[in-house]
Amino acid sequence: MDKPEHHIFVCASFRAGGDPKGVCHKKGSVNLLPYIENEILDRGLDAQITSTGCMKACDHGPVMVIHSQGVWYGNVDSEDAVDEILDALEDGEIAEDLRISG
Amino acid sequence: MDKPEHHIFVCASFRAGGDPKGVCHKKGSVNLLPYIENEILDRGLDAQITSTGCMKACDHGPVMVIHSQGVWYGNVDSEDAVDEILDALEDGEIAEDLRISG
Repeated sequence: MDKPEHHIFVCASFRAGGDPKGVCHKKGSVNLLPYIENEILDRGLDAQITSTGCMKACDHGPVMVIHSQGVWYGNVDSEDAVDEILDALEDGEIAEDLRISG
Repeated sequence: MDKPEHHIFVCASFRAGGDPKGVCHKKGSVNLLPYIENEILDRGLDAQITSTGCMKACDHGPVMVIHSQGVWYGNVDSEDAVDEILDALEDGEIAEDLRISG
């Protein structure tokens, strides 16, 4: 199988049994998934998006993690935020103002 | 926040609405989560485990992806398989026979 160059993880706050109940889900992270999918295609990025259970960074939610960059982003709550992050990814850079520091 | 050195993603086959219904879940991936958590602690690994929605590698399920190694593993269906993968991780190596090639 072909593995993607970039693997984008979006917290959907799934509990162990599958219920999406946490901060990221309440703040609409899942609603952004179709937009992110479209942007990946439009930009021709070799990227896969995967929703996740709680990533334990709830204070910063909605949370997105991009590997191989190894960057954690917070407050990803709008299409503008997604654009900023993907613009940076395309340029091999990091959207510093959305990055979770530490 | 402190970000983990290793981020271990275990496919739990969550659908968009949260129902865990796919191959990895049926093959028991979620049942291994407590074992993996314990092994991370026992080994003193700086690692975080996150369950995910479908990672689209169902033919190889149960699937586990480890970043920052960027390695995709398949057939992670037993404690022995987990041990083999974490043994390799501790040594900075890759458990090649469980790795998804390509």
